[in-house]
Amino acid sequence: MNGDRFTVTYRLRCDRAQVEARAEAVALEQSVELPAAAVTDHRVRDDVMGRVLAIRQRDEREFDVDIALAEETVGRDAGQFLNMLFGNTSLQDDAVLVDVTVGATFAARFGGPRFGIAGLRELAGVRGRALSCAALKPQGLPPAALALLAGTLARSGIDIIKDDHGLADQSAAPFAQRVTACQRAIEEAQSVSGSRALYAPSITGSLEDMRRQLGVAREQGVRVALIAPMISGVSNLATLACDAGVALIAHPALAGAARILPPLLLGKLFRLFGADATIFPHAGGRFGYTLADCAGIADAARHPWHGLAATMPVPAGGMSVERVHGMREFYGDEAMFLIGGSLLLAGDALAARCRAFVDAVAAPYAHQDSRHD
Amino acid sequence: MNGDRFTVTYRLRCDRAQVEARAEAVALEQSVELPAAAVTDHRVRDDVMGRVLAIRQRDEREFDVDIALAEETVGRDAGQFLNMLFGNTSLQDDAVLVDVTVGATFAARFGGPRFGIAGLRELAGVRGRALSCAALKPQGLPPAALALLAGTLARSGIDIIKDDHGLADQSAAPFAQRVTACQRAIEEAQSVSGSRALYAPSITGSLEDMRRQLGVAREQGVRVALIAPMISGVSNLATLACDAGVALIAHPALAGAARILPPLLLGKLFRLFGADATIFPHAGGRFGYTLADCAGIADAARHPWHGLAATMPVPAGGMSVERVHGMREFYGDEAMFLIGGSLLLAGDALAARCRAFVDAVAAPYAHQDSRHD
Repeated sequence: MNGDRFTVTYRLRCDRAQVEARAEAVALEQSVELPAAAVTDHRVRDDVMGRVLAIRQRDEREFDVDIALAEETVGRDAGQFLNMLFGNTSLQDDAVLVDVTVGATFAARFGGPRFGIAGLRELAGVRGRALSCAALKPQGLPPAALALLAGTLARSGIDIIKDDHGLADQSAAPFAQRVTACQRAIEEAQSVSGSRALYAPSITGSLEDMRRQLGVAREQGVRVALIAPMISGVSNLATLACDAGVALIAHPALAGAARILPPLLLGKLFRLFGADATIFPHAGGRFGYTLADCAGIADAARHPWHGLAATMPVPAGGMSVERVHGMREFYGDEAMFLIGGSLLLAGDALAARCRAFVDAVAAPYAHQDSRHD
Repeated sequence: MNGDRFTVTYRLRCDRAQVEARAEAVALEQSVELPAAAVTDHRVRDDVMGRVLAIRQRDEREFDVDIALAEETVGRDAGQFLNMLFGNTSLQDDAVLVDVTVGATFAARFGGPRFGIAGLRELAGVRGRALSCAALKPQGLPPAALALLAGTLARSGIDIIKDDHGLADQSAAPFAQRVTACQRAIEEAQSVSGSRALYAPSITGSLEDMRRQLGVAREQGVRVALIAPMISGVSNLATLACDAGVALIAHPALAGAARILPPLLLGKLFRLFGADATIFPHAGGRFGYTLADCAGIADAARHPWHGLAATMPVPAGGMSVERVHGMREFYGDEAMFLIGGSLLLAGDALAARCRAFVDAVAAPYAHQDSRHD
C-alpha cells in the first residue's frame, strides 16, 4: 500500500473529442469501478484509483492511452493481475490491451520461468543450436499407437515430443495409460539411439486434476508438461510454476488474436507467470499472426527483464521442414521449432522426414538477422 | 467411444468460393489437428474427426457452419470442452463461436447449476418478485468501511450484496478480514431489520486459493460466492460447483464481447458448468452488448434444457434505479437486477436510494413482454 503503480497501454477506437473522457472511463473501470465523484475516500483516490498518464494519437480514430494502476490492487495473484489489466474492459469492443510495464519488485511477486531457456536446454542436453519439437496426434488413437509414434520421433532425433493440445484425459487414451506408454517408448528410443528426447504430456482440467496428472507423469520420469493457460487459468499456471518441478510449455489455445496483443499475452504475461516455453503460430501458417506479432512475442519472451529467466519461443501452427531455414533466419537459434501435422503427412517416410527436420534445425548457418547479432 | 457427437456453429468471414474448404479446415483444427490425408486410422476418421454438417450463407461474406465434433474428445472436463469448441480457432480472426448443441447425457457430465434460480430464491427467501443485488466497492477501502457499506445495503433491503469483482486478497482488505467483517455486518442488519440479505464474496486465484477462501467464508456463514470463470478457468468453476456447497455467481470479466457470442458463453456454457447466476452487461450501460445479446443470454440461462437447473440472469453494468422498470419489462421477474456505482453516487442518501431500488424491484407490475406470458 505504498502507492506503487504499473502502467498499462490500451488502444482505443473513438473520436478525438471523446478520447480523454474514454481514457478516464477505462482508468476508473479497471480500478475503482465507480464514477470518480463516488470515490470519497482520500487514500483510494490517491493510491488506488486509475490515473491517465498519456494519450497518443495513432490514427484518425485510434489512440494509445497509458494508464497507471496500483500494484496493491493485484496482490500476488496472476489471475487478479489479468483481471485488473482487462477484466471489464474486455467487454468493451472499442478497446485492445496493448502492453504493460511493471517494476522489478512487482515482477518478482510472480517469479517468471523456473526453468526457462537455459533449464530446457539443460533438460534436453542441447547447446549451440535451436531445439526441435513435434506433436503426438491425432486425438482418438489408443496409447499404443501414440507410443509407437513417440518412439519413431525420438529415434529420429526430435528433442521435445509433446502431446497435441487436444489430448486430455479421454477414453481413447486415458492420461495415465497414455503417459506411461509414451514415456516408456521414448526411454526405449533413448537407450537404442542415444536420443535425449523429452516427452511433454498435455495436462488439463482443474488444478487438482493437473496435480494428479503431474504426479503420475513425474512418477514415470516426465520432466516437461504442456498447459493452455487461457483455458486452465493463469493462476493455476503460476501455482504449478512455483511447485510442480517440471518445465511448463504454454499453449495459446483460447488466447484469441485481437483483443490482447499477442506479444503481451503469449510473450510477456505467460513469461511473468512462469511459462518456460511459449507456443505461438508463426506468420504464414494456418493462423492470422503477422511477422510483427511473432517478432514481438519472441522479443517479449527473451529480452532481459528484471532478472526473470527467458522463455523459449516456440513458433508453430502449420510449419514444415522447408520453412525451418527461414524461421532460423527470423528467430535465431534461441528458439524451439515445432512441426506437427506436416511430419505426419509423410506416412511411412515419417522417420526420414523427422531426420530432415532435425538436420535443418542443426545445420551450420550464419545468421543474418540483426536482432541476433 | 460410441461415436456420439455435439454440434458446434461457427460464423466464418470468407468468400463463397472458399467457405467449404474453410469449414473443413475448422472441422479438422477442432478435432484431429491434422490434414485429413494424415488421418489413417479408420476409427479416428469415423468417430473422432470433425465433420461439416451444414453451411448457411448469412451475408455476402458471412456464413454459419455447423460442425459435428465427437463427445469422446471432451472427456468430462469443462476446460477441455472449451478447448474443443474454440481452442485453436480462437486464434483465427475470421471465426466466431456462435453456438453448441449437446445431448442430455453429455450435459449430465457437467451437471449445471446445483442451486440455480430456485436455490438462490430459497437462500434469499424471495418468491414472487425479482431479486436485487448491489456491490461492495471501491477496492482499496479497509474491511471496516466495506462492512459499513454492507450493513447499510442489507438494512435497506438489498437481497444479495456481492464484492466488486476487483476485490481479491489484497493488503487493503485481506480476504479473511474483509469477509468476516462484511458477513458480521450483514448478520447484524438481519437481526435488526428482518433483512435476509446474503453476502457473496469474490473468490480469486488458483483452485487451492479459492478453496481456502471458501473455507473461511463458509465458516463465517457465507452461502454464495462470486467467481470470474474466464479468469479462474472453467474447470475450476465446474469443480467448485460439484463440491463447494455454495451458490456461485459468475462474473463476465475477460469474457470479451465478440469472439464467443455472449449468449453461448455467459448463458449456455456458464450454466452447463455450474453457475447459479450469471452477471452480464445490460444494453445501454457502459458496455457494448445489444438487446439481442441480452435476451439471448437470459434465454440460454433460463430455458428448459436437458433437466439442468436454470441459471439466474443478472443484468448489470451501469444500471440505475430509473432503469429497473424497463429491465423488469425486458427480463421479467425471474431475474436479479444489479446496481453498483449508481447507488454509491448517492453519498449520504445511499440508504434512501437503496430503498427506492428495492421498491422498484418489488413494485406490483403487469408484465407485457410476450416472452414471459
